[in-house]
Amino acid sequence: MGMIGGGPGAFIGPVHRIAAEMDREIELVAGAFSSDAARSAAAGEVYRIDPARAYSDVAAMLAGEAARDDGIDFVAIVSPNHHHLPAARAALAAGIPVLSDKPMTATLAEAKELAALVAAAGLPYGLTYTYSGYPLVREARARIAAGAIGTVRKVVVEYPQGWLAGEAAGKQAEWRVDPARAGDGGCIGDIGVHAFHLAEFVTGLAVTELLADLGAVVPGRALDDDCTVLLRFANGARGVLLASQIEVGELNGLRFRIYGDKGGLTWRQEEPNTLILNRLDGSSEVIRAGTGLLGPDAAARSRTPGGHPEGYLEAFANLYRDFAAQLRGEPAPLLPGIAEGLRSMAFIAAAVAASRARAGWVTLDI
Amino acid sequence: MGMIGGGPGAFIGPVHRIAAEMDREIELVAGAFSSDAARSAAAGEVYRIDPARAYSDVAAMLAGEAARDDGIDFVAIVSPNHHHLPAARAALAAGIPVLSDKPMTATLAEAKELAALVAAAGLPYGLTYTYSGYPLVREARARIAAGAIGTVRKVVVEYPQGWLAGEAAGKQAEWRVDPARAGDGGCIGDIGVHAFHLAEFVTGLAVTELLADLGAVVPGRALDDDCTVLLRFANGARGVLLASQIEVGELNGLRFRIYGDKGGLTWRQEEPNTLILNRLDGSSEVIRAGTGLLGPDAAARSRTPGGHPEGYLEAFANLYRDFAAQLRGEPAPLLPGIAEGLRSMAFIAAAVAASRARAGWVTLDI
Amino acid sequence: MGMIGGGPGAFIGPVHRIAAEMDREIELVAGAFSSDAARSAAAGEVYRIDPARAYSDVAAMLAGEAARDDGIDFVAIVSPNHHHLPAARAALAAGIPVLSDKPMTATLAEAKELAALVAAAGLPYGLTYTYSGYPLVREARARIAAGAIGTVRKVVVEYPQGWLAGEAAGKQAEWRVDPARAGDGGCIGDIGVHAFHLAEFVTGLAVTELLADLGAVVPGRALDDDCTVLLRFANGARGVLLASQIEVGELNGLRFRIYGDKGGLTWRQEEPNTLILNRLDGSSEVIRAGTGLLGPDAAARSRTPGGHPEGYLEAFANLYRDFAAQLRGEPAPLLPGIAEGLRSMAFIAAAVAASRARAGWVTLDI
Amino acid sequence: MGMIGGGPGAFIGPVHRIAAEMDREIELVAGAFSSDAARSAAAGEVYRIDPARAYSDVAAMLAGEAARDDGIDFVAIVSPNHHHLPAARAALAAGIPVLSDKPMTATLAEAKELAALVAAAGLPYGLTYTYSGYPLVREARARIAAGAIGTVRKVVVEYPQGWLAGEAAGKQAEWRVDPARAGDGGCIGDIGVHAFHLAEFVTGLAVTELLADLGAVVPGRALDDDCTVLLRFANGARGVLLASQIEVGELNGLRFRIYGDKGGLTWRQEEPNTLILNRLDGSSEVIRAGTGLLGPDAAARSRTPGGHPEGYLEAFANLYRDFAAQLRGEPAPLLPGIAEGLRSMAFIAAAVAASRARAGWVTLDI
Repeated sequence: MGMIGGGPGAFIGPVHRIAAEMDREIELVAGAFSSDAARSAAAGEVYRIDPARAYSDVAAMLAGEAARDDGIDFVAIVSPNHHHLPAARAALAAGIPVLSDKPMTATLAEAKELAALVAAAGLPYGLTYTYSGYPLVREARARIAAGAIGTVRKVVVEYPQGWLAGEAAGKQAEWRVDPARAGDGGCIGDIGVHAFHLAEFVTGLAVTELLADLGAVVPGRALDDDCTVLLRFANGARGVLLASQIEVGELNGLRFRIYGDKGGLTWRQEEPNTLILNRLDGSSEVIRAGTGLLGPDAAARSRTPGGHPEGYLEAFANLYRDFAAQLRGEPAPLLPGIAEGLRSMAFIAAAVAASRARAGWVTLDI
Repeated sequence: MGMIGGGPGAFIGPVHRIAAEMDREIELVAGAFSSDAARSAAAGEVYRIDPARAYSDVAAMLAGEAARDDGIDFVAIVSPNHHHLPAARAALAAGIPVLSDKPMTATLAEAKELAALVAAAGLPYGLTYTYSGYPLVREARARIAAGAIGTVRKVVVEYPQGWLAGEAAGKQAEWRVDPARAGDGGCIGDIGVHAFHLAEFVTGLAVTELLADLGAVVPGRALDDDCTVLLRFANGARGVLLASQIEVGELNGLRFRIYGDKGGLTWRQEEPNTLILNRLDGSSEVIRAGTGLLGPDAAARSRTPGGHPEGYLEAFANLYRDFAAQLRGEPAPLLPGIAEGLRSMAFIAAAVAASRARAGWVTLDI
Repeated sequence: MGMIGGGPGAFIGPVHRIAAEMDREIELVAGAFSSDAARSAAAGEVYRIDPARAYSDVAAMLAGEAARDDGIDFVAIVSPNHHHLPAARAALAAGIPVLSDKPMTATLAEAKELAALVAAAGLPYGLTYTYSGYPLVREARARIAAGAIGTVRKVVVEYPQGWLAGEAAGKQAEWRVDPARAGDGGCIGDIGVHAFHLAEFVTGLAVTELLADLGAVVPGRALDDDCTVLLRFANGARGVLLASQIEVGELNGLRFRIYGDKGGLTWRQEEPNTLILNRLDGSSEVIRAGTGLLGPDAAARSRTPGGHPEGYLEAFANLYRDFAAQLRGEPAPLLPGIAEGLRSMAFIAAAVAASRARAGWVTLDI
Repeated sequence: MGMIGGGPGAFIGPVHRIAAEMDREIELVAGAFSSDAARSAAAGEVYRIDPARAYSDVAAMLAGEAARDDGIDFVAIVSPNHHHLPAARAALAAGIPVLSDKPMTATLAEAKELAALVAAAGLPYGLTYTYSGYPLVREARARIAAGAIGTVRKVVVEYPQGWLAGEAAGKQAEWRVDPARAGDGGCIGDIGVHAFHLAEFVTGLAVTELLADLGAVVPGRALDDDCTVLLRFANGARGVLLASQIEVGELNGLRFRIYGDKGGLTWRQEEPNTLILNRLDGSSEVIRAGTGLLGPDAAARSRTPGGHPEGYLEAFANLYRDFAAQLRGEPAPLLPGIAEGLRSMAFIAAAVAASRARAGWVTLDI
């Protein structure tokens, strides 16, 4: 694997590296970590890769690796959003599969361009909507598909954070509040889209309509930092998506509550090893990761027995495991890819446009 | 105290009785518990009152009690919503103060009529928005007023229930889903209005605009059973109000999270003895009821030391304590009354109308 | 009801008054609240009783009330431990039934004397081991009796508090750390005995052997403030009882975990409305108060629907309800009485003696 | 790194592999995974190592690796307890450092022998007491060392599990209940010793006396499966250690509560990213992993920002990181080694002997 982005100060680069290598199917061997050669070299040193394989631009990496017998088999794109399309385009042009951090691109137009490029290239393309890698998220999806809560009627998905409540500092914040680098969406594109993907992933239902109310709460901010989006799903189910980055004290509180006519399921990312199933008869079941209560997909994606908590890195690693399977030509139907990426970008675009226009309900069709 | 409503099968009558008498300032001595004489007598027996004082209509009770030396000093109205106005009107006409279950009346027009009657009568009038009686809710209000979280920016108030997810049964459900008895609002009037009141009570801010999306999810239901309302507060703060009665597995999950530019406060009714204060510097404080950390109002409304849980009945009793103070001519500024009732009814009316018309944002001015 | 003790500054007096009156079967009408006439009168005023019925000693109350047509039907003894025997003796001699705060008396010898007096008098006698009044504690007892967890193998009952960790202050602490007034046991008699009773109550099993390690941790303290007691039950089950009053940050953390060969049950007093049942197959059930999942005894002792939390005062009121039934001649088999009181006093005596002697395992037979 | 043990069906082998490689300082390249050649080869395939480096005995591995330029730098011993000494002896004899799963050996006598061997060899030796690798465990240690709770007075450390409550099945259970392979201690040696180490690690205090009550609850079991141990620490602090493998519904519930004269700290392994600090003034602080509230050691051992949960594998990886530092000659004072191993083995031996003899309090000196 070669990494694009993930230079000094980026949180997500090391996360990708650890996740990629956790199951020992993938090894980080090269990277275009930064456009600054010294910084890329420094990152390479931290990652303990061969110094010759720490490149300062994507083209150089693709060329350099193509020239090697042991060159990279795919790239992981972890740079800010506006780099996603050009990086993916270059990799695909070089015949290299792509696993990309979300969102797919900075804009919907770019996403459509990338979809066409992937289709033309016929190469694997995956998107790391990390939270869909949690075993109990997959268990929730499987249980809903199997009818455990009946027909889905109501979806509440929330993603509260508080780290942008004050004057944001550091590399993580900088590009996220800059329209030129993050795209049109701030909070909605950074985390709202995770919540959107999770809602569709777990329910197996497409959002068909939305009403968005995005706000820029912190004075002087150009992009939204607090989002409320009302949803309608294909089966008529009602939904609410809340995402915010100004909710002081919230760390990474992604969670969902999904209700059908026979039951309800609730899950929280910050305590990811417990899933609660409530039934219409008043009974409640606590489903714990790593136990015999899990279905095959969730069981196969737990690395430890019950009570030995797994977390974010292990969830992330489950996506890499899916991608590795895809590279070997095996099916990995739960790994998000182009279809999910396009829907996500359409969601961001629709939410941003509808909120600006105070447009009320708009359709989401892609 | 004389009770209006609260006959056999009603949950709320015994709750009012216990709450009223908890601090031994008030005693239930009479009631028009049901319009059916036998049922009213039966209720009177359950409440252990003098059989002669179990009346079968309000007028009879007011007349009968007026004729006694030890007649009632006020009435508590706990009947279904459409009885609230006539019962209050009769009591006020008889010179009797009123403590009423929420909502104030079945419709906004009725509420305005009642407001005028109360003003004309110059008598105490209170509304049992129960949840504002919890000591830690008052602590939250006091802390926000004192600047603990800075300027309020965001309010999330949720009230999930699940008991109307199936075919509802029993007396509790029957009138709540019938427009003739409940008024125009179903879930929004039954529990959404609690959430609305709590949001204004705790923040000290008025809601000025709202966007409502009310749905009737269970097939065949005439009134809303699932509500999402976006809010704007007078200072520009953003808000979301979620209320539902079809969320399977939720019992009475009222809760709020309020964020300012310096901190955040979270509270849940089902674990009412804990309040969490998060600060911008990343620190979190756990404030527990009955401890020395409480301010004077909350401390004065805790009856047990920390760790000896108080609950719903004690919160309810705090409202009766406030009302008793008012009857004695003492100030009880936190007891909801006409102003809060009018705002609540205006909220219901605006939400119902705006949702039906898919009107987008509407103003709330009263 | 007449109260003995509960004068100004006592926490437990008002608790008894509220609990006694909650179901409107009992009314506080008289009291010997303090041996100081002025203080007893002041207390009577706070309790809003007829000033003529606020007495300054027990004998005066018993005589005064006997002379009235509407005299008291029983006394509630809420004074410090060393008053329990004389007060009960006087009441029984006057033909008045007794409901007493725990522990039964200050010493085991006194308890035996009282047991004989009660037997001779043939009058109702109850002990307010409050925590056995919680609906979910009774549900746990009923479930275990019905075999829900199979044969009980292991009992862990804990009662952590922290309020005596520092230099204790106030009336509550004063007599509890004084051997002359509290008896030989400090923490063991004040709260350890609650844990002991709960263990026997919920399992339906008698403790037959114990090994006690009591310590006086805070410098200068004459009585134990931190207790560990190992237990063996009649069926051979193993047990551990932990009680402490020096665990900083703990408020009133009484809890139990009971394990059998088919399941386990856990409950915490500070969140008393939830009981967890774990089964050998790995499944977990959450049982919530006020819902249709409760058996008849627990259901009959819940006053509110699920999600409307009940707490300490309601649990206490359930004991008064049992006692009222007993006064009417109805069975109330779950109300603790002489038998439970004797066992509790024997437990305290055995634990104190065994710990002082570093005696290892001793038998508990009474 | 070469692995000893960890063949097919072993849970702990893959855990060591992932933990070792997480920070990319270490790579698993060889193994004597099983004494059965076919099984060792199969394991090697699962671990994706060079087939030539999957050996069927330790001697062969040590010889084979010594003959390579890129031979192993250390061994990780993850086999059942009775293999620990011979495996370590062989490695040390070959000049190879050792990182060993706990307990150090099967018996105290073996442990002393190993201690002498390590001293003679002058080679790094580490023990994976995993739970001491959690960032918040280290934070707790650092806070206590810095005086956050004052003088430690009371320690409660618990390790409930339930997986041996029934007829145990599978490879994990088999050797743990067999004295020939597990040593004299069952539950006490398997998990009780984790709790013991954690108690000493976090408090920085040595246990000086203990009173042990070990039981074999499940019929037919030769080794203890339920343990209660009372403790005294060097400063006079009182302690209780509870460990059990028959508590149905408990997964891996290791936790501690530590109280001093100024505060208390609580932590639970199953929710490892939260540490609670209570202070004598009644205030409570919630310390969350990955936030700016952590001291330098804990901060350096968190790989993700707050709210992105880390778990068991990351804690384990922190021990490997410490060991890698030690291999490079850097200090890693918090990695358990010979001293901690000896104390742990002495603890097991003392507990087993004292319990069998019903000996009461015994001293623990080593």
